Amino acid sequence: MKKEYCCSRDQMKYAGTHLIIEFWNGRDFSSLPKIRKILKDSIKACQITILNLNLHKFSPSGGISGVAIIQESHVSIHTWPEYKYAAIDIFVCGQVDPYKAIPVLKKGFRPKMIQVAELKRGML
Amino acid sequence: MKKEYCCSRDQMKYAGTHLIIEFWNGRDFSSLPKIRKILKDSIKACQITILNLNLHKFSPSGGISGVAIIQESHVSIHTWPEYKYAAIDIFVCGQVDPYKAIPVLKKGFRPKMIQVAELKRGML
Repeated sequence: MKKEYCCSRDQMKYAGTHLIIEFWNGRDFSSLPKIRKILKDSIKACQITILNLNLHKFSPSGGISGVAIIQESHVSIHTWPEYKYAAIDIFVCGQVDPYKAIPVLKKGFRPKMIQVAELKRGML
Repeated sequence: MKKEYCCSRDQMKYAGTHLIIEFWNGRDFSSLPKIRKILKDSIKACQITILNLNLHKFSPSGGISGVAIIQESHVSIHTWPEYKYAAIDIFVCGQVDPYKAIPVLKKGFRPKMIQVAELKRGML
């Protein structure tokens, strides 16, 4: 049987699941080592393989951009410490459950407010 | 005056503009060199600086994942050649116009169907 690289759930088939996550009033939004660790741990919680992880810190704002290419797509974070805001995206395909990353991200960044939206990308 | 790293438009202020782009029935969705060139050209069209560009090809599907970290956030692409589908994200902050990338992406991949949604991330 040919392996399919897509999501199958509730009689739907689509290319990828994309979580759009907003964290407000969190901590460590300008710490490179902490963001690196939290990202790695959250990806590990989903049992997915990191192919590549890059982080950049911007001055003078202290904001950080980080993107991991994973076997099953990508995880990104962009932080605005001056607004105490971080935008996090988790895009996976296959049978990976991206929601498993959320408790790890919450524990790491301790946001006071969270919003999560789910997009089904590439409905087949 | 303190520089702000956010978007200001139509009396709104928000951290970033995120375009969610779906390309169907396009070409070159399994070509690493073409995807690399199209991504670079589309980012150049927005007059933004690439800090890092990583692409990975998956076998046996031939699907490609690519992510560029840019000065103003990120651009990602994930292709499913078996479904003739590509998911492209452009996330920018500041006064960058991400829509300038779209004609370049269209010219490169020649999709027969396109969908674009815009998210305003981190409304302030």
